[in-house]
Amino acid sequence: MNAASTLGIIGGGQLARMMAAPALGLGLPLRLLAEGAQTSAAQVIPATTVGDYTDADAVVAWASGLTAVTFDHEHVPDAVLRALVAHGVEARPGPDALVFASDKAAMRAQLTEWGMPCPAWRVVHNPAELAEFAAEHGWPVVAKVSRGGYDGKGVWIVDSVADAKAPFDSLAVGHGPTERVGSSPQTSAVIVAEEYVRFVRELSVLVVRGADGEVCHYDISETVQRDGVCRETITPAPGLDTQRADEVYAFATELARACGVVGVLAVELMEAPDGRILVNELAMRPHNTGHWTIDGAHTSQFENHIRAAAGLPLGPTGLRAPHVVMTNVLGGSVSDLAGELGAVLTRFPEARVQLYGKSVAPGRKVGHVTAYGDSLEVARDTARGAAAMLEGRGTASEEEGR
Amino acid sequence: MNAASTLGIIGGGQLARMMAAPALGLGLPLRLLAEGAQTSAAQVIPATTVGDYTDADAVVAWASGLTAVTFDHEHVPDAVLRALVAHGVEARPGPDALVFASDKAAMRAQLTEWGMPCPAWRVVHNPAELAEFAAEHGWPVVAKVSRGGYDGKGVWIVDSVADAKAPFDSLAVGHGPTERVGSSPQTSAVIVAEEYVRFVRELSVLVVRGADGEVCHYDISETVQRDGVCRETITPAPGLDTQRADEVYAFATELARACGVVGVLAVELMEAPDGRILVNELAMRPHNTGHWTIDGAHTSQFENHIRAAAGLPLGPTGLRAPHVVMTNVLGGSVSDLAGELGAVLTRFPEARVQLYGKSVAPGRKVGHVTAYGDSLEVARDTARGAAAMLEGRGTASEEEGR
Repeated sequence: MNAASTLGIIGGGQLARMMAAPALGLGLPLRLLAEGAQTSAAQVIPATTVGDYTDADAVVAWASGLTAVTFDHEHVPDAVLRALVAHGVEARPGPDALVFASDKAAMRAQLTEWGMPCPAWRVVHNPAELAEFAAEHGWPVVAKVSRGGYDGKGVWIVDSVADAKAPFDSLAVGHGPTERVGSSPQTSAVIVAEEYVRFVRELSVLVVRGADGEVCHYDISETVQRDGVCRETITPAPGLDTQRADEVYAFATELARACGVVGVLAVELMEAPDGRILVNELAMRPHNTGHWTIDGAHTSQFENHIRAAAGLPLGPTGLRAPHVVMTNVLGGSVSDLAGELGAVLTRFPEARVQLYGKSVAPGRKVGHVTAYGDSLEVARDTARGAAAMLEGRGTASEEEGR
Repeated sequence: MNAASTLGIIGGGQLARMMAAPALGLGLPLRLLAEGAQTSAAQVIPATTVGDYTDADAVVAWASGLTAVTFDHEHVPDAVLRALVAHGVEARPGPDALVFASDKAAMRAQLTEWGMPCPAWRVVHNPAELAEFAAEHGWPVVAKVSRGGYDGKGVWIVDSVADAKAPFDSLAVGHGPTERVGSSPQTSAVIVAEEYVRFVRELSVLVVRGADGEVCHYDISETVQRDGVCRETITPAPGLDTQRADEVYAFATELARACGVVGVLAVELMEAPDGRILVNELAMRPHNTGHWTIDGAHTSQFENHIRAAAGLPLGPTGLRAPHVVMTNVLGGSVSDLAGELGAVLTRFPEARVQLYGKSVAPGRKVGHVTAYGDSLEVARDTARGAAAMLEGRGTASEEEGR
């Protein structure tokens, strides 16, 4: 591929927005298909078309003349991806890879076949089958809708057979529990039952596979989730055994190769009490647990993602500071984030703030703060303190609990 | 000023383009007045108007609703700046500051009054007066047109009275030696004669003054110029005496305060054989000798410039690596820079390449490469090698001479 070509991006969220900065640095023109003219990325990418990413004809027309497209999210229907490919446009990642990020049943089946470390799991078709799984693996059971869930939506912790109805009811309502599913009804969603891992902590590793098959990885992060939403990442993950880390890099790299992803593959992990590290979720796009790379790594996940999609070599992924902490800013009582920014940067001069240009709604991801340095404690206080101010909490005290 | 306001930028060059990345990070919307729809910055800023920055009515109309505007260049006529201010739009920097960057005679007079270290100088009106100056300070004499010169244009090294006609002829042709002058004929240009300093090397320091008067500075760079065009910067300047450096920081900071600049003030310097450091030129915008800050400093000059213009606090300016080298990419035999990028990044994985989206013309600044690390030599080889490939020279051998 001639790197001079324009790169297409489908989806106007903050992930696409954060691809814009490295793209302009590399002189790589972008063309965006966005859900609306005021979406996060549409505000900063001139060549934006507003259109429906589930409409194959519209997507193919939009992509005319492009060599490759990549994605802000994993909800583009398989049929649309295949229509793009049929019209000579590379989807990066392609449909055969993306299925493992968009379908948890397919992901679990394939990971198990490849011998990757997973919790016990099974597709279950009714509460009785779920109870049968629980009889083998114990209550509670994690029930996940196979398609369309995100940020904790579409996931249930089922404590007893009496609770087991909700996941299946959600399927009956339509195609799943969220409005996103309705727009990508590629195959019927099913319920995946998973062993409830009493994990010590959650981790994440990002690998990137180039269009030529080259794979690189970032340092493993400890991630703090709350209600299924990422709150904070700490990189490198404190106290992680080197040998365990190397095992993770090895299987994540192998996974990227095996599934043929092009771009970022984010592997969310659980560290079990016995030290085993298990795969929890996959994402095939820049990921919230990799936002720290903008300020904390030699090449950000966004730059390496677009490099991969544009057929360019990947850049070095090493840390630029001993400790990097990223804290999400979730919509709180501050509606004018930009107006608050001056006070935040005065109080926390070392904070690296990213705002996504999104209107504030309760709990909505509207920005993040990264801090780095020789001291993990100082970096954490900075990131938490700045994020707390942007959420209207004023102090970081609420965050001190862990 | 409410930081949520949109920031206006006049001028569509690469300096405005490189403001776009930090602006989108900070959630700061930009509005651009560009010379053309395909200029470097217009490619990456959606809210672009094509218009004439010398037309006060057009500029005021474009700026409607803005709180502040800043600049890609210093060629906006004084009358236009004052019209903006009269309509309640802050010019950052403002007209009273900008005159010192746009008029070398005014700059020298003011610097002398403030006791800043300058070469000997005098405004001369004809070859006879220039010869008189030479009689006092020796041949050669540096003759500079007071307004409109850039990148070595409008500067002559005059060796004898027989050579002294050219600078004055250039004034007679119009308003000065370049087409840029013609578009900003604010006052008549004059010729400034300056002592020819047999400098050991050239240096540069960037200071930034916030809208609230806060001033910060970056490390001093050694700069390598060729034919008046910046080729390379090395930061920190190797072997610079700490006490001398502190003197430079002190007078550059004082200068920023005295002239009331808001945003970046770049001070180009000459190190004389006796160790004195003299002011050569001033610029009041992000500067080529500060491009290294994108990859080499905690906050880039572009981010601090827009923070200042938007009324936000400035970010920390410290180095992120022991040595940072920036090499310009000047238009050479490679016309498809983006097409060459893959080979460059394969050969030099550590190179941080910025391409400006400009068509290639001989000697035109079309991009730059930054490299950083523990070894100055390795960083320099990387930056030079990558830039050489993008210029079509293939190897860095031509650069080895110094």
